[in-house]
Amino acid sequence: MKYFDKVLIANRGEIAIRVMRACKELGIESVAIYSTVDQNSLHVKYADESFLVGEAPPSKSYLNIERIIDIAKKSGVEAIHPGYGFLAENADFAKRCLEEGIVFIGPFWKTIEAMGSKIGAKHMMRKAGVPVLPGTPDGVTSIDEAKKVAAEIGYPVIVKASAGGGGIGMQIVNDEDGLESALSTGMRIAESAFGDPTVFIEKYLIKPRHIEFQVLADRRGHVVHLYDRECSIQRRHQKLVEEAPCPIMTPHLRERMSASAIAVAKACHYANAGTVEFLYSGGNYYFMEMNTRLQVEHTITELITGIDIVRQQMAIASGEDVAFDQQDISIRGHAIECRINAEDPLHNFAADPGKIVRYRSPGGPGIRVDSGIHMGYSIPTNYDSMISKLCAYGATRQETIERMRRAIYEYVILGVKTTLPLHHAIMHNPHFVEGDTHTHFLQEEHVQRNLSRFIREEETRMQTLATSLRQGKEMAAVSAAVNVYLQSTKQ
Amino acid sequence: MKYFDKVLIANRGEIAIRVMRACKELGIESVAIYSTVDQNSLHVKYADESFLVGEAPPSKSYLNIERIIDIAKKSGVEAIHPGYGFLAENADFAKRCLEEGIVFIGPFWKTIEAMGSKIGAKHMMRKAGVPVLPGTPDGVTSIDEAKKVAAEIGYPVIVKASAGGGGIGMQIVNDEDGLESALSTGMRIAESAFGDPTVFIEKYLIKPRHIEFQVLADRRGHVVHLYDRECSIQRRHQKLVEEAPCPIMTPHLRERMSASAIAVAKACHYANAGTVEFLYSGGNYYFMEMNTRLQVEHTITELITGIDIVRQQMAIASGEDVAFDQQDISIRGHAIECRINAEDPLHNFAADPGKIVRYRSPGGPGIRVDSGIHMGYSIPTNYDSMISKLCAYGATRQETIERMRRAIYEYVILGVKTTLPLHHAIMHNPHFVEGDTHTHFLQEEHVQRNLSRFIREEETRMQTLATSLRQGKEMAAVSAAVNVYLQSTKQ
Repeated sequence: MKYFDKVLIANRGEIAIRVMRACKELGIESVAIYSTVDQNSLHVKYADESFLVGEAPPSKSYLNIERIIDIAKKSGVEAIHPGYGFLAENADFAKRCLEEGIVFIGPFWKTIEAMGSKIGAKHMMRKAGVPVLPGTPDGVTSIDEAKKVAAEIGYPVIVKASAGGGGIGMQIVNDEDGLESALSTGMRIAESAFGDPTVFIEKYLIKPRHIEFQVLADRRGHVVHLYDRECSIQRRHQKLVEEAPCPIMTPHLRERMSASAIAVAKACHYANAGTVEFLYSGGNYYFMEMNTRLQVEHTITELITGIDIVRQQMAIASGEDVAFDQQDISIRGHAIECRINAEDPLHNFAADPGKIVRYRSPGGPGIRVDSGIHMGYSIPTNYDSMISKLCAYGATRQETIERMRRAIYEYVILGVKTTLPLHHAIMHNPHFVEGDTHTHFLQEEHVQRNLSRFIREEETRMQTLATSLRQGKEMAAVSAAVNVYLQSTKQ
Repeated sequence: MKYFDKVLIANRGEIAIRVMRACKELGIESVAIYSTVDQNSLHVKYADESFLVGEAPPSKSYLNIERIIDIAKKSGVEAIHPGYGFLAENADFAKRCLEEGIVFIGPFWKTIEAMGSKIGAKHMMRKAGVPVLPGTPDGVTSIDEAKKVAAEIGYPVIVKASAGGGGIGMQIVNDEDGLESALSTGMRIAESAFGDPTVFIEKYLIKPRHIEFQVLADRRGHVVHLYDRECSIQRRHQKLVEEAPCPIMTPHLRERMSASAIAVAKACHYANAGTVEFLYSGGNYYFMEMNTRLQVEHTITELITGIDIVRQQMAIASGEDVAFDQQDISIRGHAIECRINAEDPLHNFAADPGKIVRYRSPGGPGIRVDSGIHMGYSIPTNYDSMISKLCAYGATRQETIERMRRAIYEYVILGVKTTLPLHHAIMHNPHFVEGDTHTHFLQEEHVQRNLSRFIREEETRMQTLATSLRQGKEMAAVSAAVNVYLQSTKQ
């Protein structure tokens, strides 16, 4: 089954290549788009055809809807896969595809729009009987109402600006004494930042876990889940390490949470691959949001279920039904993904774009690498810093951690700083090894201490490696470049 | 569970790295040995310690038992893993390890010795009730006896020198008319080649399949099998493509063959990982030999069972029991391995050692690469031409073939000729796609025609790739080297 003859991939980097790999396997021709700084990127060379879409800034290239639609029409594709990020959750883009008779490989634009409103989505899911964080999403109007609500949901609570985002004006309140001042401060900040003083109150979870369910749904409303992922280890609200299944999952909890995930997908008439995200704390879970697209970490679900999620996306988008019933889908083993970003984990994750002067992928049993880079590649400054996804798979969580440690040892990326040393540290952290993680894991003081030590250890090893490589005759050509790396690691 | 503190790996290349990967994961220190031409090889850099073992010729290095034992004692290892090839099936070496109090990671030396005698092993297995090719392994003494035997087992039969090997003096006889002259010719050739005129008669199978079972056995005599592999696609009696499970396997056939495989392991008191090889033809199967070591193609069994066979070898060698009962072991999906050799598939597989001027591994879903090479690596002329093993895994055989084709497309090895274009051809061959293979597959005329066309197609693509890489700015440094590749492909 081929699904389509020709597909445009409206993305770049590893995810463009991931989608093109599925196309290549199925015999579908792939069309790449690229910005001026990406003309030598791997995804451009991988595709059967490629077109310049615009200048480096995303608004001029990978977010330029009309340019992309033009290229799609010119190249004669039947469908567009948006990857993740950029236009993947842009309802206007999905709608424009529909208007032009091009299949958007994702859900219907109205579903994207409905789930794009975080407050609206929570209302919808509360109505559908899905647990949602207790609170007053529409805002509080008086201190008396605030006190009543906070007493009902129990402290601590968090005060947030209704119009806000990015943590601006957010305040954690531990008891009734602090509520009044938090409310007035919050309203003042909200007014000045967003021109709207409305604030709302929500239950504040201490050290919650991020647990999500992958779902597949077709146009007939048949919905299955591909089990759970734990994605608690984050920096700046972005995931760094994900694993499947969630290490604290029990059959009972899985039954409840998967039923909620399926209820979410049904409530928004979902059709394609999607992810339902929950926060979990103290035995309870709460719907957070639904990501109406392929996710970075779909890889680990593929490893434990044996199901190719990108192929499933294409099948569903082409009008096929989901080929599985729930009882056909089982998990075997455990998988972990480490996101390799070109950034400095010891200096607040500052981006470190630059040229890759030496590159060698890990291999052997249980290792999957999805990368958009290669030796000699220059990482542009304009886009996300993620350059590779390193996944390990094993029969047990322990074996998977052991394989990930070994793969990190093997992975050689010289020329830029990466999160590899941080992942080395996390994989040796006793709390992580015990499965004891939460969304503030990286901020914990004992974790920080442990991380610094392991990061330094790993950086020392990298320097030794660079020296040893430099000594090898075959490295003569890049020895100057390795020097640059050594210089850059001296801080 | 760590099993050992320190292990010496008495091998080189990808298999040395495979074993070291298991060591690294388990926290076992690894010790490499290397010959003078291997001092910059990856396995030397991967190990925690490494020792020069001797000059390039195997007899002076990787086959030098006493030097290896010396290094093992000097470095204080508890065990030696022999890999495959070299000393892996050398009973003397296993015995010397035992005498020195070093654990040999493999079966007891007497088992190696017993299975090393191909005729002796067949006698033993016939007694154990395992089907063996009908024939007269002890030799025939008269034409009358030969006629009687041949009539019993049915034509065609093959006449072989008892003391021989390498196909010398082998003759296929289709009917009784040809028997007398074949017998006298065979005896004359045997006498002149081996100083012993004895010949024997065996049933000749037309287009048999090579089907083998992976087994695990412990010292208590507990034996399990890890299912079957089909390895029919061979060149010069060496496997080129393997897959698991065998595409024509049925539950009934698997029940019978796996019972025979377990009977073989029990009959020779096997303890460790081993492989029982059968020829299969016309609904019947015959014991061929038992390989008393880890095999090249253990990878595909790991992919479909989720069991790490090298870890199991170490566990068993350390005295542990096999941790599984048969019902704990199941297969999921399908896996194929392509052996990437540095040789020219269009010129009788002539070895083509040289320098790797550009190297990029495939990745993404369902791909495993076990390689001993990297960019800048010079392949020595002294050893086996296999430089990498490319494995694909998928939910179905079809998906696996699609992924293998895609991985071959991604795999860049420039500087030497490889079997990659041949694998490209095999993966597109309609007979292979149908699962219709046998041990003479590559000699079939229609296959040859098909192969030549696809190999040329792939070589053209490689040239285009090289040109395109050369045009990329990042390739300036290696463009001269790419030129060398382009020159070498012009024949």
